[in-house]
Amino acid sequence: MVLPSIFKYDIDERRELIDTIMGRKPADIVIVNANILSVTTGEVLENYSIVVKGRRIAGIGRYDDLHKYIGKKTLVINAENNYVIPGFIDPHIHIESSLLTPTGFAKLALKHGTTTIVADPHEIGNVAGIKGVIAFIEEAKNLPLKILIDIPSCVPATDPRRGLETIGYSIDVDDIRKLAELEGTVGLGEVMDFISVVNGNKNILEKVEAATRYGLRVNGHAPLLRGNTLDAYINAGIYSDHETLAYEEALEKLRKGMYVFIREGSAWRDLERLSKILLEDKIDCRYCCFASDDLNVLDLYEKGHMDRIINEAIELGIDPVKAIQLATINPAKYLHLDDHIGVIAPGRLCDLVFTKYLNYIEPHTVIANGEIIYYKGELKKEFRKPTYSSGLLKTVNIGKNIKTDDLIVKASIKDGSIKVNIIEVYPGSTLTRKRVEELKVENHVVKPDPRKDIMYAAVIDRHHGTGNIGRGFIKGLGFKAGAIAQTIAHDTHNLVVAGYNPNDMKKAVDRVVEIQGGVVIIDNGEIIGEINLRYGGLMSIEEPEIVYKKYKSMITRLKEEYNIMFEAFFMTLALISLPVIPEIRLTDKGLVDVSKGEIIPLIPSHE
Amino acid sequence: MVLPSIFKYDIDERRELIDTIMGRKPADIVIVNANILSVTTGEVLENYSIVVKGRRIAGIGRYDDLHKYIGKKTLVINAENNYVIPGFIDPHIHIESSLLTPTGFAKLALKHGTTTIVADPHEIGNVAGIKGVIAFIEEAKNLPLKILIDIPSCVPATDPRRGLETIGYSIDVDDIRKLAELEGTVGLGEVMDFISVVNGNKNILEKVEAATRYGLRVNGHAPLLRGNTLDAYINAGIYSDHETLAYEEALEKLRKGMYVFIREGSAWRDLERLSKILLEDKIDCRYCCFASDDLNVLDLYEKGHMDRIINEAIELGIDPVKAIQLATINPAKYLHLDDHIGVIAPGRLCDLVFTKYLNYIEPHTVIANGEIIYYKGELKKEFRKPTYSSGLLKTVNIGKNIKTDDLIVKASIKDGSIKVNIIEVYPGSTLTRKRVEELKVENHVVKPDPRKDIMYAAVIDRHHGTGNIGRGFIKGLGFKAGAIAQTIAHDTHNLVVAGYNPNDMKKAVDRVVEIQGGVVIIDNGEIIGEINLRYGGLMSIEEPEIVYKKYKSMITRLKEEYNIMFEAFFMTLALISLPVIPEIRLTDKGLVDVSKGEIIPLIPSHE
Repeated sequence: MVLPSIFKYDIDERRELIDTIMGRKPADIVIVNANILSVTTGEVLENYSIVVKGRRIAGIGRYDDLHKYIGKKTLVINAENNYVIPGFIDPHIHIESSLLTPTGFAKLALKHGTTTIVADPHEIGNVAGIKGVIAFIEEAKNLPLKILIDIPSCVPATDPRRGLETIGYSIDVDDIRKLAELEGTVGLGEVMDFISVVNGNKNILEKVEAATRYGLRVNGHAPLLRGNTLDAYINAGIYSDHETLAYEEALEKLRKGMYVFIREGSAWRDLERLSKILLEDKIDCRYCCFASDDLNVLDLYEKGHMDRIINEAIELGIDPVKAIQLATINPAKYLHLDDHIGVIAPGRLCDLVFTKYLNYIEPHTVIANGEIIYYKGELKKEFRKPTYSSGLLKTVNIGKNIKTDDLIVKASIKDGSIKVNIIEVYPGSTLTRKRVEELKVENHVVKPDPRKDIMYAAVIDRHHGTGNIGRGFIKGLGFKAGAIAQTIAHDTHNLVVAGYNPNDMKKAVDRVVEIQGGVVIIDNGEIIGEINLRYGGLMSIEEPEIVYKKYKSMITRLKEEYNIMFEAFFMTLALISLPVIPEIRLTDKGLVDVSKGEIIPLIPSHE
Repeated sequence: MVLPSIFKYDIDERRELIDTIMGRKPADIVIVNANILSVTTGEVLENYSIVVKGRRIAGIGRYDDLHKYIGKKTLVINAENNYVIPGFIDPHIHIESSLLTPTGFAKLALKHGTTTIVADPHEIGNVAGIKGVIAFIEEAKNLPLKILIDIPSCVPATDPRRGLETIGYSIDVDDIRKLAELEGTVGLGEVMDFISVVNGNKNILEKVEAATRYGLRVNGHAPLLRGNTLDAYINAGIYSDHETLAYEEALEKLRKGMYVFIREGSAWRDLERLSKILLEDKIDCRYCCFASDDLNVLDLYEKGHMDRIINEAIELGIDPVKAIQLATINPAKYLHLDDHIGVIAPGRLCDLVFTKYLNYIEPHTVIANGEIIYYKGELKKEFRKPTYSSGLLKTVNIGKNIKTDDLIVKASIKDGSIKVNIIEVYPGSTLTRKRVEELKVENHVVKPDPRKDIMYAAVIDRHHGTGNIGRGFIKGLGFKAGAIAQTIAHDTHNLVVAGYNPNDMKKAVDRVVEIQGGVVIIDNGEIIGEINLRYGGLMSIEEPEIVYKKYKSMITRLKEEYNIMFEAFFMTLALISLPVIPEIRLTDKGLVDVSKGEIIPLIPSHE
């Protein structure tokens, strides 16, 4: 583990802090009348002062001779007996899900009191390989939000040799070793392929072992894993999980020495189900943390980040101190970074959140690494617009001009009807079911059927310009407009398009290619919704407030004018191409039967 | 931090564990009917099984199909619903104080359930420099007790340039870097020189910073440090302390993010005073640990190690689960070794202690690294006698034959009386006071005065054979026999001799030189007590049970036949030569006024 340079704590810095608190040098900031939350003891320390020098805290206490810390340039902040709590830590998040760049995310997350996150750049890793991960690391270096990096462990989601899809990039064990030597990588991202783990698969164990050797923390992804299968998974060296769904499952994981990251994101919300653990007085919760996993820009902007989760927990009856520990000291201990973050104490990085109430966290002043980022709600820090290499801004290459014919399904019969393997989806769920439906054929073209809610879908390789297109039908999406195209399609993030009208579909594809990534909704030849995600086809490079406003106005318009619930389609289509979740998926190579792990024909052979 | 090889967790080992718990390979040990203490959740898990493969735990649970883990060679242990708790961890101990070698200590400590210690080889470091530290590391490699090493930070206790004593060896910042690269060093030993720390002294900060750079944990020594001085000390990067004496002091340290190691050793016992913290429901105690610091062979053999501290805590009313957490998961978290030790869980080293009761810990079966060391009280493991280089067994070199004249004090006057600077001691306290006393002179010899409890004392360089001898008088020791000589004399461990009769003193010195280190008590020319400490002049190389028996019989005989309370003299003399504790000490260079930091004349100049 090579920590980012902000964590470096050299002799000069130590001496500066010592000299400051001994009164030999003036402090940079002195905070008075603070009600500090001590997360180590679980107490509120009333009327304390905090003396800050450079990036770190020089001392906390009720000093009699406070004047000796205050020089001409010292900033004195009166906390007015507000609570001052440690900056929040999110131990597992995919920044890409917010549609924001790391810089954009940082600006909003800091507003909500987050000062450290562990980001798993799994999406950009799929789109750009280690170059994408390195781009995140580089961008993080200039930010007041400490963005620590989990190296994505499962890129691509499927073994390319199985030929189920055209992948973007892969990150192999050698890449992991290379990345582990870079500043800022602290962990191996969620190990999703638990089947391989419990089978003792060499490839995945090599990755985990390599990560451990570099001192990285290995993160799990083990929904519903129990009993000896869970033991086997842990034995690989995986000591945390953020996919725990049920109370008993969480308890078992905690008992087996696993950190349980209680996830409360935008789409997946586990807090209420797992809150029972936090409500039981007799259960030690030091192995519990909160994590957001995936958070969209809407929730981030309107409801917040870790503050939102803490507030929801408090509303469920959980003790505020305990809730805050789950977002501060507990993840710091998990990360073995408790010497630096998660605690308001001498020698620690000065990451502070001011809130008027402890039972409802509303950060108004946020200090990160001794720097005031927000003061009474007002932004005090300039976030410089990052620049990106053209390689990361031009990631959509479909290799040819798409024709409507490329997106529709043809049959050997000229007219009549034909049985077709289709994908049934359930918006709100990640699962799909394989169905056989009878569809009309007109002049060799198999037709979608709006009455049955069956529409065209196609997945186009957008990474290598092979011209590969997989075609099929989706049932149950409930989409009413002409077509939707998007470059967010886990995990490979090829270009997915769905619709009734091939002309609208072509137009949506053309537009997504033109803007080099994003989401485009077309109805009757008109663009009725668009999000430009130029960075890797995943993230917007605009200011986060602009991204939020555009997103908000788009979904409002779609809902009010077209009765389209954008989120549901977008999320469902984003998973339509992931050939590791049962039961049937569509990739650029065609329909995939997930349990068989093979491509199956669209039109069953006996027809 | 380079962990000992026992911590290595390579792919093959991971796969073995996975294969075992998946039923593909038989287990080595299966423990049934265990009431496991889960220190992560604080619960007792009744009727659990523990499946062990090699050094680690493959799984814990209530498995329906236990038979699949049991092969022909699998050892099945019925725990008979005894409590099975994690092996204990002592985060701070000086093995040398037990008078035992690491091997001898390991044999007894394991019997009492200790499976990991962090040893600070400060004494052997003073006697043999880094060679002594390396000898400890090497010996530890063959032991089932995991002995992790703190590199002594303050060897020697005083800067040799000040010339207050002839030191044995020194360990400088380059030595620290060298040692930090060796397997098994996990920390920097107690940073005693807190004055230098708060003054921002470059030399000491360099040591701390170098240690941090290697990922070592830095241990404190900060008795009574409070307020901004404590802040300054912490700012150096020192996040633990085992010298906390009072409740409020402990609370302040915890609040400031310091781990408080509640010390309960043989001589220094802080548990009762600090127990209030552990008794308060509202104080989170995750930053509290137990530590023994110094433990003599008597207590270790008769009362135990961490089990003794836990039992004392329980007797003071502390919840047994909490008490056990202070000796298991809490130190594991402090050390950042929670992936390996301190928890009974899959993937962790199999360190188990069986005890019939949870509210009185009496280990009868102890497993360390998957190996049964004691089974129902019976030793099952052979401890091979270690061999030591002659350099470590021949450390007493006084350079010449001592004559009685070397040990007495002379005056310029022939007869009469004279004022002399003497050292007043208070057995049981580490402090001394400088006194001026009038002593008789007979034929130019200044005489001791038994009625005033004033005796001769001398300190002889025993490392380099310089022939240096410092002479003086001690008042208040209460010693009644002829003479006592010993090679344990913190921190330099020169040869100290005290007595009334110069012939007995010479005999004691001669005998200590002859046996190459130890303690010898002479009365009227006869050896009435002797401990042979051939290893560095500090430790006995005999079997620990023999050391115990000899020690016990010696102190009993001294008490019963001579009314001598051995411990009190021995401990007081062991500190008489340490020129960093107020107020006056005796080294081989003469009397040291500690506050002035200089040698002062024995006979005040105005006399």
